[in-house]
Amino acid sequence: MILDKINTPEDLKFLTLAEMKELASEMREFIIKKVNTTGGHMGPNLGVVEATIAMHYVFNSPKDKLVFDVAHQCYPHKMLTGRKEGFTDPDKYLKYSGFTAPEESEHDIFKIGHTSTSVSLATGLAKARDLKGEDYNVIAFIGDGSLSGGEAFEGLDNAATLGSNFIVIVNDNDMSIAENYGGLYRNLQLLKDTHGKAECNFFKSFGFEYYYLAEGNDIEKLIELFKKVKDTKHPVVLHVHTLKGCGLEPAVENKEKFHWVMPGVLDSKEAPAPQENYYSLTTDYILDKAKQDKSVVAISAATPGAYGFTPEFRAKLGSQYTDVGIAEEHAVAYASALAKNGAKPFFAVMSSFIQRTYDQLSQDLCLNNSPVTMLVYWGGISGADATHLCVFDIPLISNIPNMVYLAPTNKEEYLAMLEFSYNQNNYPVAIRVPNIPLISTGEPDTTDYSKLNKYKMTHKGEKVAILGLGNFYTLACKVKEELHKKLNIDATLVNPKFITGCDAEMLNELKNNHSLVVTLEDGVLDGGFGEKIARFYGNSDMKVLNFGAKKEFTDRVPLNELYNRYHLTPELILNDIKSCL
Amino acid sequence: MILDKINTPEDLKFLTLAEMKELASEMREFIIKKVNTTGGHMGPNLGVVEATIAMHYVFNSPKDKLVFDVAHQCYPHKMLTGRKEGFTDPDKYLKYSGFTAPEESEHDIFKIGHTSTSVSLATGLAKARDLKGEDYNVIAFIGDGSLSGGEAFEGLDNAATLGSNFIVIVNDNDMSIAENYGGLYRNLQLLKDTHGKAECNFFKSFGFEYYYLAEGNDIEKLIELFKKVKDTKHPVVLHVHTLKGCGLEPAVENKEKFHWVMPGVLDSKEAPAPQENYYSLTTDYILDKAKQDKSVVAISAATPGAYGFTPEFRAKLGSQYTDVGIAEEHAVAYASALAKNGAKPFFAVMSSFIQRTYDQLSQDLCLNNSPVTMLVYWGGISGADATHLCVFDIPLISNIPNMVYLAPTNKEEYLAMLEFSYNQNNYPVAIRVPNIPLISTGEPDTTDYSKLNKYKMTHKGEKVAILGLGNFYTLACKVKEELHKKLNIDATLVNPKFITGCDAEMLNELKNNHSLVVTLEDGVLDGGFGEKIARFYGNSDMKVLNFGAKKEFTDRVPLNELYNRYHLTPELILNDIKSCL
Repeated sequence: MILDKINTPEDLKFLTLAEMKELASEMREFIIKKVNTTGGHMGPNLGVVEATIAMHYVFNSPKDKLVFDVAHQCYPHKMLTGRKEGFTDPDKYLKYSGFTAPEESEHDIFKIGHTSTSVSLATGLAKARDLKGEDYNVIAFIGDGSLSGGEAFEGLDNAATLGSNFIVIVNDNDMSIAENYGGLYRNLQLLKDTHGKAECNFFKSFGFEYYYLAEGNDIEKLIELFKKVKDTKHPVVLHVHTLKGCGLEPAVENKEKFHWVMPGVLDSKEAPAPQENYYSLTTDYILDKAKQDKSVVAISAATPGAYGFTPEFRAKLGSQYTDVGIAEEHAVAYASALAKNGAKPFFAVMSSFIQRTYDQLSQDLCLNNSPVTMLVYWGGISGADATHLCVFDIPLISNIPNMVYLAPTNKEEYLAMLEFSYNQNNYPVAIRVPNIPLISTGEPDTTDYSKLNKYKMTHKGEKVAILGLGNFYTLACKVKEELHKKLNIDATLVNPKFITGCDAEMLNELKNNHSLVVTLEDGVLDGGFGEKIARFYGNSDMKVLNFGAKKEFTDRVPLNELYNRYHLTPELILNDIKSCL
Repeated sequence: MILDKINTPEDLKFLTLAEMKELASEMREFIIKKVNTTGGHMGPNLGVVEATIAMHYVFNSPKDKLVFDVAHQCYPHKMLTGRKEGFTDPDKYLKYSGFTAPEESEHDIFKIGHTSTSVSLATGLAKARDLKGEDYNVIAFIGDGSLSGGEAFEGLDNAATLGSNFIVIVNDNDMSIAENYGGLYRNLQLLKDTHGKAECNFFKSFGFEYYYLAEGNDIEKLIELFKKVKDTKHPVVLHVHTLKGCGLEPAVENKEKFHWVMPGVLDSKEAPAPQENYYSLTTDYILDKAKQDKSVVAISAATPGAYGFTPEFRAKLGSQYTDVGIAEEHAVAYASALAKNGAKPFFAVMSSFIQRTYDQLSQDLCLNNSPVTMLVYWGGISGADATHLCVFDIPLISNIPNMVYLAPTNKEEYLAMLEFSYNQNNYPVAIRVPNIPLISTGEPDTTDYSKLNKYKMTHKGEKVAILGLGNFYTLACKVKEELHKKLNIDATLVNPKFITGCDAEMLNELKNNHSLVVTLEDGVLDGGFGEKIARFYGNSDMKVLNFGAKKEFTDRVPLNELYNRYHLTPELILNDIKSCL
């Protein structure tokens, strides 16, 4: 096997073209086998096997600096830079991160997982090189729709003025995560249609030298192109047309489905019977509303699949659906203006990606008090990669004035909150879509959510009151039971529902026959919900214990380990309560 | 006077061309007089008098929707939409905001002050119009460098696909706030040089229809152009070349200086003797370091003047200075990579504008732990316009892992922190540059800041401990005095210095002989510093009072009024302490 001989990129340099082709085919096989076992990014990596081999053949990493955008397209790079065991040895499948990770290899410069950052980062590397009088190539490898993010544009704008070596490889696989959207992609299409010859050229408009390669999965042509621009003394864009999913027919046939896959995607299995969950509740709700009200619009930013916005759902909505591309900033401003002009936007977004929009949430949305419904998915502590943690959305969103951020705990509350948000015109509303299995009470929730910051006391007890926010309401129930069992305390149970405010009336009432308030939140404590409760009680005798995540970037730490670290089990919480009473 | 006859845009329609020209000249005179009296945005508004008249002549606001980018170029618009008294009557100079404000007029759709938002917002308006089957023009008026912001790009990318009426007016006055930077502006120059005829056209690359007008201060030609595209059924860009400062010679001569001016800029006065302040300390420090170390880079994002980065300072730094344009996201990523590659970046930014970079701070900077020095200016409660509040930076920055956010209280601390940050390679450091007059102790600060989160106890007392953060350390000193005078309490005084962490050792020590800890911070309380102290003491008998701003958007509220509202005077704080003891 050729791969046996490859331990560093240096080893590639001794291969013949035929051997490199053979290597590509071996790598592809391992990627398919591994990703089908562990899940992960299938299509993106299959598309860049040849480009990665050619890059490492022509350039000299780590002296030459490669920055991978999104970094989920770095599997072939990992295989060529000392980490192939993560793909060849099933026991080591989980050893390496699915993104670039400097702690793993000197060939990875940045920890990256969010899109559209590579050009900006590479510009900084190049500028440092120039200031220090050093000499090597700096390469940004961008693709999978990342060009539509504002940061990529800002990076291109500045990089174009560098006046020194700088190479952007645009891996154009015709796709974002789902289809590409936006005017820019029409230009990429025009460039492909004209074999790069169209005069109207997005990249040239910035001042980049530009080369087009139609055969982005042809190692020989890639090598030829890379050699041509190696050691260039000015900024260059290489527009390389690759095939997403190349080498795996189902992945080529269905590029969206195979962008990121669950384990076993290739194994013939009965599809599980569709079950009601928060995804289906949401899409059913939106479809229903959209039928009755032509001003309803569902919005996503390039990751529709993450919210169950399937191709069928999108087709049914037609013009009542907008995917803005990887452009969350625009999505928030766009939604704000839609609402301002009388439409009813629902913007679905992952907790991790809403991070890209703090200013738009504050200035475009909340300052203008536009009645948008924002659905924040996946919020909570998880064993995720450090680049996709979803624990920061509460501090991010809830400290912005005017915002109403809601945390439902079950199906009926969620539907009632959706309905409340849809019907009101007074504030921006964000709902933290529960990240736990669906719970149904069977009873419709008739709460009037227009009375802001009214918590719900679900059990009136004494001594200890437990505030279980959103996902962690069930944990609060368990703690209550334990308190009863182990300490014979009949604790009060509260479902706060509102993340963005304190229910002063209820909190004051608790002072009468409670000495401790416990808050539980599925997110980072710093800047979060519990601290507001602690501040509220600061001038009183009430003691307050806040439970949630520590302010830290965790990287694929098992959830149980995190729960233990943060004292988020009923037993550990009980212990802390005991020592506080 | 023609202006006497203009109370709504409708009144313009009855004017002859000659009268409109006369009107422009009258408006210009009032703008100059008013801005020279109150301060404000001079050059941008003088440049768009004709374009604004022509827009309101051709289009029918409020049916047709105008969205002004940055909105600081809306003075002529205000004069034509029922608010001329704010310019003609010195007693009403302060009645209206310097930005668009829906509460003032139906002709203002959004409250906007940050740049690069107009295209995204207008896209939402247009989409809502289309969904509702309505019919009118939607116009985004963008200029003053706003095109370099990522959100503008994301907006253009989506707007280009609208397939319905959409008009972007690019007010190209050759400038951002200072010079324009970036490849995009080279394309604008090319388009100007070729009278719009160059094939390589940034706007056309998205699919926009494109028109160029060289004479952007010629009402007749503007009207002709606007009439041509009125009621267009697809997205159009009008590239209009205007003269920033038009009609005021010094403003044309020195466009940067006259972008935003202080009162009296046109009155001949002796220039005040240069005094040492935090601006001069910073520029002196950077120049000195840059001379010794070629890897030092100062970075700004289009507002160098706000940090005393004068043209002379920039010229001295040469290639060791980068202005990235209005592109804070890129600035953070760029700085992170500079640091990663061994350079020493100092990124200066306003508290209000750092809001545009939460994700870059988290992902590009902090997750990668790059040793960048970030200087955050103007942080604190102020009487500013709602769009430029600087009270949110503490929650925004300090809840991100790995970040070290410092709050100096005097010259020596500030210099020691700069030096600490420059010399270390372990974390991103942000310094909240004091927003109060310079205080000097005369004694060098020899603190070892690498011992993170060590607060400084400046006076050891009992009963009450006062933690005065940054700007508010002097307020803490006053409260201490009052406590002594009025309650005979010898309070402990603490200068926390570190915003990003708790000094557990000191806070625990305080439990021995204190019953109350008071925190004072010059920013919003929600998600801020004080809440962390409240959380820390939650399980103890220590009482905690947090003082700072309420979570709200304030709009030109006098500072004293805010201090009273938030109980931020020594007397009010004393009262609150009394009722807590």
